[in-house]
Amino acid sequence: MLFAPVLGRRAYGLHIMLSTVDRHLSTLSRRRPSAYNLMQTHYFATGNGSAMVLPSKLPDRKGIMTTDATLQDWQQQLSTQSPKDILRFAHKQFSSITISFSGAEDVVLIDLARKVSDRVQVFTLDTGRLHAETYQFIEQVRKHYDLDLEVLAPERERVEALVREKGLFSFYEDGHKECCGIRKVDGLKRKLATVDAWITGQRRDQSPSTRSDVPVVEADTAFGSPEHPLVKFNPLANWSSQQVWEYIRMFDVPYNPLHERGFISIGCEPCTRPVLPNQHEREGRWWWEEATLKECGLHSSQD
Amino acid sequence: MLFAPVLGRRAYGLHIMLSTVDRHLSTLSRRRPSAYNLMQTHYFATGNGSAMVLPSKLPDRKGIMTTDATLQDWQQQLSTQSPKDILRFAHKQFSSITISFSGAEDVVLIDLARKVSDRVQVFTLDTGRLHAETYQFIEQVRKHYDLDLEVLAPERERVEALVREKGLFSFYEDGHKECCGIRKVDGLKRKLATVDAWITGQRRDQSPSTRSDVPVVEADTAFGSPEHPLVKFNPLANWSSQQVWEYIRMFDVPYNPLHERGFISIGCEPCTRPVLPNQHEREGRWWWEEATLKECGLHSSQD
Amino acid sequence: MLFAPVLGRRAYGLHIMLSTVDRHLSTLSRRRPSAYNLMQTHYFATGNGSAMVLPSKLPDRKGIMTTDATLQDWQQQLSTQSPKDILRFAHKQFSSITISFSGAEDVVLIDLARKVSDRVQVFTLDTGRLHAETYQFIEQVRKHYDLDLEVLAPERERVEALVREKGLFSFYEDGHKECCGIRKVDGLKRKLATVDAWITGQRRDQSPSTRSDVPVVEADTAFGSPEHPLVKFNPLANWSSQQVWEYIRMFDVPYNPLHERGFISIGCEPCTRPVLPNQHEREGRWWWEEATLKECGLHSSQD
Amino acid sequence: MLFAPVLGRRAYGLHIMLSTVDRHLSTLSRRRPSAYNLMQTHYFATGNGSAMVLPSKLPDRKGIMTTDATLQDWQQQLSTQSPKDILRFAHKQFSSITISFSGAEDVVLIDLARKVSDRVQVFTLDTGRLHAETYQFIEQVRKHYDLDLEVLAPERERVEALVREKGLFSFYEDGHKECCGIRKVDGLKRKLATVDAWITGQRRDQSPSTRSDVPVVEADTAFGSPEHPLVKFNPLANWSSQQVWEYIRMFDVPYNPLHERGFISIGCEPCTRPVLPNQHEREGRWWWEEATLKECGLHSSQD
Repeated sequence: MLFAPVLGRRAYGLHIMLSTVDRHLSTLSRRRPSAYNLMQTHYFATGNGSAMVLPSKLPDRKGIMTTDATLQDWQQQLSTQSPKDILRFAHKQFSSITISFSGAEDVVLIDLARKVSDRVQVFTLDTGRLHAETYQFIEQVRKHYDLDLEVLAPERERVEALVREKGLFSFYEDGHKECCGIRKVDGLKRKLATVDAWITGQRRDQSPSTRSDVPVVEADTAFGSPEHPLVKFNPLANWSSQQVWEYIRMFDVPYNPLHERGFISIGCEPCTRPVLPNQHEREGRWWWEEATLKECGLHSSQD
Repeated sequence: MLFAPVLGRRAYGLHIMLSTVDRHLSTLSRRRPSAYNLMQTHYFATGNGSAMVLPSKLPDRKGIMTTDATLQDWQQQLSTQSPKDILRFAHKQFSSITISFSGAEDVVLIDLARKVSDRVQVFTLDTGRLHAETYQFIEQVRKHYDLDLEVLAPERERVEALVREKGLFSFYEDGHKECCGIRKVDGLKRKLATVDAWITGQRRDQSPSTRSDVPVVEADTAFGSPEHPLVKFNPLANWSSQQVWEYIRMFDVPYNPLHERGFISIGCEPCTRPVLPNQHEREGRWWWEEATLKECGLHSSQD
Repeated sequence: MLFAPVLGRRAYGLHIMLSTVDRHLSTLSRRRPSAYNLMQTHYFATGNGSAMVLPSKLPDRKGIMTTDATLQDWQQQLSTQSPKDILRFAHKQFSSITISFSGAEDVVLIDLARKVSDRVQVFTLDTGRLHAETYQFIEQVRKHYDLDLEVLAPERERVEALVREKGLFSFYEDGHKECCGIRKVDGLKRKLATVDAWITGQRRDQSPSTRSDVPVVEADTAFGSPEHPLVKFNPLANWSSQQVWEYIRMFDVPYNPLHERGFISIGCEPCTRPVLPNQHEREGRWWWEEATLKECGLHSSQD
Repeated sequence: MLFAPVLGRRAYGLHIMLSTVDRHLSTLSRRRPSAYNLMQTHYFATGNGSAMVLPSKLPDRKGIMTTDATLQDWQQQLSTQSPKDILRFAHKQFSSITISFSGAEDVVLIDLARKVSDRVQVFTLDTGRLHAETYQFIEQVRKHYDLDLEVLAPERERVEALVREKGLFSFYEDGHKECCGIRKVDGLKRKLATVDAWITGQRRDQSPSTRSDVPVVEADTAFGSPEHPLVKFNPLANWSSQQVWEYIRMFDVPYNPLHERGFISIGCEPCTRPVLPNQHEREGRWWWEEATLKECGLHSSQD
């Protein structure tokens, strides 16, 4: 069992043990009141206030195993919380945590996170095949939120080898997995190897076939490992597309101008298309493939 | 009360009296079985069969008043019927009947009507300011369905006078009513003066503020009059946008390519814009005006 | 008073003979000095000064015959003059004179004319099928130059009849003449019947096959008649496309944004396309027809 | 065997001297007939015949010095030759030679080269910021000519470092040299280190300030070195844009669809824009910088 009983590296300082205790308290919290539990109560009670912003320096949680039990506990606690509260919680628990930004509507993650933390880290995967509008939007977001936005590029050798062998549009022939692997997943792995937790914009309503069970927090078994446990937060899991867009419009969040031209889900230019009215957004991605295969590998589960 | 007891012109031939009887039977049909009622039963029972197509020559119903009682009866009968059944009924009742086609998703009306009648008449209002794509689409529909599609143009003198006085974009300054009046409603009036009934693509879900009560059939009190009673069918009133688009995709109905670029509701080029994901389609029309005013005059009620 | 003897309105019956004499004086002007000749000398000497602007009220020249001899004389005088000088001359000779504006680069005519006259009249032909960008540009020009820009629309009945018989794109099948006739030439005739002279943006380099002989001034035998003589000025006849665009860029003249997308010559949307680099601009118009037929009827000669 | 004595690979150490002698013979060729000279005569005499295609395997010329004298001689011989003849000559002289393809009108180089050699090698620089249309066009060219088209990508680390420090659009702030250096010139250097000669689409008429002296053949002192001498052919140097486009249209050469939207010179998406009619193509590149700096580094001279 992944993350089973004790996963992490071990020779730590005091704060780590304390926070380990914290975790144990946390797993007990449903049964009896505790300091942790009270803190949580206090925490969520003030959760919707916008004044409390997390400090930029937190005790480093690196190496602390987040046990399955803890995650289940978190999941239970957070499943009814708002995206903002989940983001606050995530930034409270982890100092080494980053938001994955796709250049689309998950910009709301950044907008929300900036309201609850001043340690917001964001990365995006530049596949070398994004829309011109997406590059402009990424830059706009970087400036608008004054972010140290990390843009990860693919490995030259791997891109060149793929294109030399199969040309620039092989994905239309034999599927998008190989190209996504080289242009997206490689960089993602490099990035995730440096953090303890990451935050994505996945929602349950995005993909009937592949995302219907997205939890608000989970152990990332695809990119984490016993040696490097990784937690994945999906603060928007319970939000609908409707809610995301109401938020964007209500708070004047900057958005990718492609959304004004019929695009909902946005990825690489050759693998994204606008959808018709009332067409599911996922039909705008890898439309030549089976619906059940429509994940780029960022959120795939390990077999 | 409009259309009250006897509205129409009167010195008719036999068939008119008979059909008046028919109407009366119709109003009684809920209480006791009758020949008419049985026919109706038979009719709707076969309603979903595609084999039965109405003959191209029907006894002319012109001048027969359709009383309020009849309309209420029809409304009650048809309110749970499918759009196709409503279209069949409409074409059965009226020989002088026409479909109003906007160049947008109401193309489904044409597609459905052609399945139940070979007397389908269609008109569209060329305001002189439509998108290039809409002109192309209108022509595509004309050819695809081999229609005698009537394209109505605005009066030269009125257009010239408006533009001379206020320029080409006056609607942004003082509202769209004046321009719509000249470029759309004038032509509509001319057309409706020549028919006994018309068919529109109005739906309840199109406009929260102005279309929430759209019935499947009604007396058109805006363009009809005691001297020229006019019936208006809205066969899609109960359909959602979702259903319209499922139909379009399922039956490969041709559609305006603007729908692939974020446009839902489509009117004149300067007065139409694409909407964001999950934005109501009506926000793509006359967006600089109050929601309650967003009708072009085609479906306005008389005060 | 400039040109006072030549221009004044007279007690007619007499006027034609007198002005014929005037013309003769004009044709003689190269041989001996005369009041007229001296004035001309003075005129062109100050021709390049921008300070002199013609008064808004001129004696009406209506009905004065402009003889062939006069026109030949003018042509000889003006053939080496700048477009601005030609425009000044034209506005000096005629009070009832108007500029034909196509919504394309002939905007330079307006810009130049405004520098030499405050009586600039402009009309444009709204065919009902222009690009959205062209409508916006026409409005921009109207506002930028504070013009009383007359926009002429086609006759409803003729448009409807054409479309009913042949659809919205008949020109691709049997040529553009019929559609141009209804949507452009009709309006042009109506307009030209009200003036003594008009000004066009025709250039020799626009069409190797049909415009190689464009003079700077000519008798318009296509739209004029013995009963209604009409003079046509083509002040840009000698300018190249290069010169037109240098002027537009140098003086920040507003231009149709379609020129930023590969369009050079701009007419109706379905009959205009962008051209490739170094492709002749005329290949962007009516490209499915023979080069020798590529005139819309505005500049056709009577056989 | 044509050029057999000149081209054969030798037992080296010796080879440089021998080929130097060869070159001297070449420089003498204008003064007295020689085997070399006669061969040349024969060669160019058959130069315009399209039947002769070079064999795919040539003796490798690698390491043979091409002296300045030889280049001057070649330049003199080739300066009046057609692009096709220059390409034939280039492929005859060098087995390790490649065409640099930008994704724009230099596609004519490929089309011409395929007519005279079946050893055509082509590379292009994928900066990761090309237009979607350019990627499609590169693939189209790869398939149309059945090319082993090499697509070179930038180094991940360098791209990431630049973007992390300066964002995705630093070139608008401090010039395009740094970004071009990373995304284009690095890859170019890698490629050119593997060949003896390369072929570009440079033309004299492309840039009044920087390309007015482009010769048809030259020693590449920017990317070559005494240790690795490099010859650069510019077969289109003497052609005008007009001639290039006449060739493209006449021979139905595939072209980048951006050329149908006002683009002439095409590079990276953010650094390319369409030009106005009659605007110089170079104004569509790095338009925020001085004209004299408008080279991306591919053709820069060493100071």
